[in-house]
Amino acid sequence: MPQEPTAAAVKERYQAACDLGLDLDMTRGKPCAEQLDLSHDLLAASEGAGYLSQAGADCRNYGILEGLPEARELFGGLLGIPPTQILLGDNASLSLMYDVLSEAVRQGVPGSPRPWGEESRPKILCPAPGYDRHFTVCEFLGLEMIPIEIDENGPDTAAIARLVASDPTVKGIFCVPRYSNPTGATYSDEVVTQLAAMETTAPDFRILWDDAYAFHHLYPDPQPLRSILDECARAGHPDRAFVFASTSKVTFPGAGISMVASSVSGFEWLSEFRSKKTIGPDKLNQLRHVRFLRDGVGLEAHMARHAEIIRPKFELVDQVLCEELGNRGVASWSQPRGGYFISLDTAQGCAKEAVAKAAAAGVKLTPAGATFPYGKDPLDRNIRIAPTFPTLPELRQATEVLALSILLVSFEKGVL
Amino acid sequence: MPQEPTAAAVKERYQAACDLGLDLDMTRGKPCAEQLDLSHDLLAASEGAGYLSQAGADCRNYGILEGLPEARELFGGLLGIPPTQILLGDNASLSLMYDVLSEAVRQGVPGSPRPWGEESRPKILCPAPGYDRHFTVCEFLGLEMIPIEIDENGPDTAAIARLVASDPTVKGIFCVPRYSNPTGATYSDEVVTQLAAMETTAPDFRILWDDAYAFHHLYPDPQPLRSILDECARAGHPDRAFVFASTSKVTFPGAGISMVASSVSGFEWLSEFRSKKTIGPDKLNQLRHVRFLRDGVGLEAHMARHAEIIRPKFELVDQVLCEELGNRGVASWSQPRGGYFISLDTAQGCAKEAVAKAAAAGVKLTPAGATFPYGKDPLDRNIRIAPTFPTLPELRQATEVLALSILLVSFEKGVL
Repeated sequence: MPQEPTAAAVKERYQAACDLGLDLDMTRGKPCAEQLDLSHDLLAASEGAGYLSQAGADCRNYGILEGLPEARELFGGLLGIPPTQILLGDNASLSLMYDVLSEAVRQGVPGSPRPWGEESRPKILCPAPGYDRHFTVCEFLGLEMIPIEIDENGPDTAAIARLVASDPTVKGIFCVPRYSNPTGATYSDEVVTQLAAMETTAPDFRILWDDAYAFHHLYPDPQPLRSILDECARAGHPDRAFVFASTSKVTFPGAGISMVASSVSGFEWLSEFRSKKTIGPDKLNQLRHVRFLRDGVGLEAHMARHAEIIRPKFELVDQVLCEELGNRGVASWSQPRGGYFISLDTAQGCAKEAVAKAAAAGVKLTPAGATFPYGKDPLDRNIRIAPTFPTLPELRQATEVLALSILLVSFEKGVL
Repeated sequence: MPQEPTAAAVKERYQAACDLGLDLDMTRGKPCAEQLDLSHDLLAASEGAGYLSQAGADCRNYGILEGLPEARELFGGLLGIPPTQILLGDNASLSLMYDVLSEAVRQGVPGSPRPWGEESRPKILCPAPGYDRHFTVCEFLGLEMIPIEIDENGPDTAAIARLVASDPTVKGIFCVPRYSNPTGATYSDEVVTQLAAMETTAPDFRILWDDAYAFHHLYPDPQPLRSILDECARAGHPDRAFVFASTSKVTFPGAGISMVASSVSGFEWLSEFRSKKTIGPDKLNQLRHVRFLRDGVGLEAHMARHAEIIRPKFELVDQVLCEELGNRGVASWSQPRGGYFISLDTAQGCAKEAVAKAAAAGVKLTPAGATFPYGKDPLDRNIRIAPTFPTLPELRQATEVLALSILLVSFEKGVL
């Protein structure tokens, strides 16, 4: 346990870090090369996997727009969704989210009285801190964002219920329900059930359920997440949810499979616009994934190997933050059980300056504010830490620099 | 040369064909398995190609949204387009076309006074017969289609010039400029230049230039196609064209690379919405394609092998049609020098019935009318023949059945 350092001592250490000429990047949740190596056999499987589907279809040719049946079977099983309600895309589930929202804006979803784009100010609820790319999509598509507070059980359902009950232009909510980006929270059963059951004035309210970290546990015995599709069906709102997932952080972010699922009629709506816009996804890549991941047991073993690589990184960040900032009242941070991020809150009004100071010392972090709609953190305190890509020594250095930057700003702002 | 058959003789042969219980499918322009086998080494290349780009980027990971530089270099070179103006997507260039039009409807393109979707009745000119999937996209996106006649030099530029000069809601034209689907026409230099140079009342008029058969020559010494981007730039309308292409019928329709190009500012517009909607295309597949196709010489040799397989099929169809229908005044058909289709015109009012009769004898063809906007062939005479997928014996049978069906309908309608 270090002694409580003075402002001068912190400044000296920060200056020493600056003099190292570091160039470290913790801006995005990127798997490291060692993780990507785990899927080497996916490449090797390309030839061996051949090109014939179980049913004998030639995966090299046109057709099978919803995705390869055995791949839908595999991922449906893993996500607890009927394979007939799951549609597979190419790399990047973000594209599927964009398409769903873009179509909602242009034509509406089943049950829409008019296209969302024809509402005067269509709105999306955004639990925040949240995923910056969700916010970018909403903003680009002209969907006004309303931030919603989030805690360890998920978003504030009382606030949500009030908003959806009073305003028919509130058209949806964007959720990362498992190991939420960046807080790490997994939505409690109550939160899932309430989101599914609440009454909304908009007849076409939709939950965009980005289950990006469905398989990404850091520890054994993960907390289960209730099925939003089942809960919606049970509550009499079967079409309320679109569920998204991908293999981006299972196999390759640069060559994975994306997926979207919904109710039977939601799937029909998805299939309809997909049938206009594509002659089919990359089926050879789907075939490779099926051969490589095989089944639930195969996937679980694979993800356990990921965890072995990245768990020490999460724990190192926590350890360094404890050493440098523990019990000083200048910051609190999450200790996630899965996912890709640690969420850190400084004292109010310190995040932007701390991130700037870290950058000046050669440590790039996600811009402060990025985890909030419009890039505006109202309390200027949230910093997203992405520990997976750097090596352990780099990560230690980067976290120390971040901690020193926070201490420095805390001294400057009179928090310490 | 067969003797001119009587109606009774034709009926007898048609009945005999029915009795064979055929089940042949010529609905779509699909490569046959032998063609797909030509790209076997693309699969084999997966492991050997590794995952590092020329610049050392890890293609397995996130990033490089516009596509792998060496792949943009390769295809830019092949298409005569600066690599910096070409953007690579995943499988299916149709998705890129859909996205461009969908964004034009929602937000407009550079120079739009308002989104296309906010015009009272935005219109797209559609040279017809043309590609049915283009028409489906336009219809689904609420873009009204105006058919334009097309001959061996391309579409009727006088009619086009009149329409674009008088109506600001005419926002674009959908073209397959090389080995046009289905007529096989390659646009003449004059047509290309006129399309680029004509004055349009819409300040945001766009040419959707689907160069789907850019490399798909059946014979040596192909007719060159003038560069639409160069012509547009020369005419002072640099942003007028979006050019699309793909490797669907070069390597695998089920696992290819799509591409879209435009002017510098058109590329910026493409990049902007793409940057919102994706974290990147499948770069490993791009890397594989570069390793497999290598360069212009590699591609040309590869496409010559395709031609060796499918040229006899085109020639067989022509031969059978000549034998059965030659000089009888009941049909004329194209003798394309590339692409994937033969376009056949019956006498007026006979196509639908002929296609139905062929179907009854077990030969499925693209529905008559599909090659026209809204599926309506005003003269009910165009039939699209897709010769590449069936084997030669199948193709002979299928073409004979089609010819007999046409003869039969011609007798019934009093054309013969």
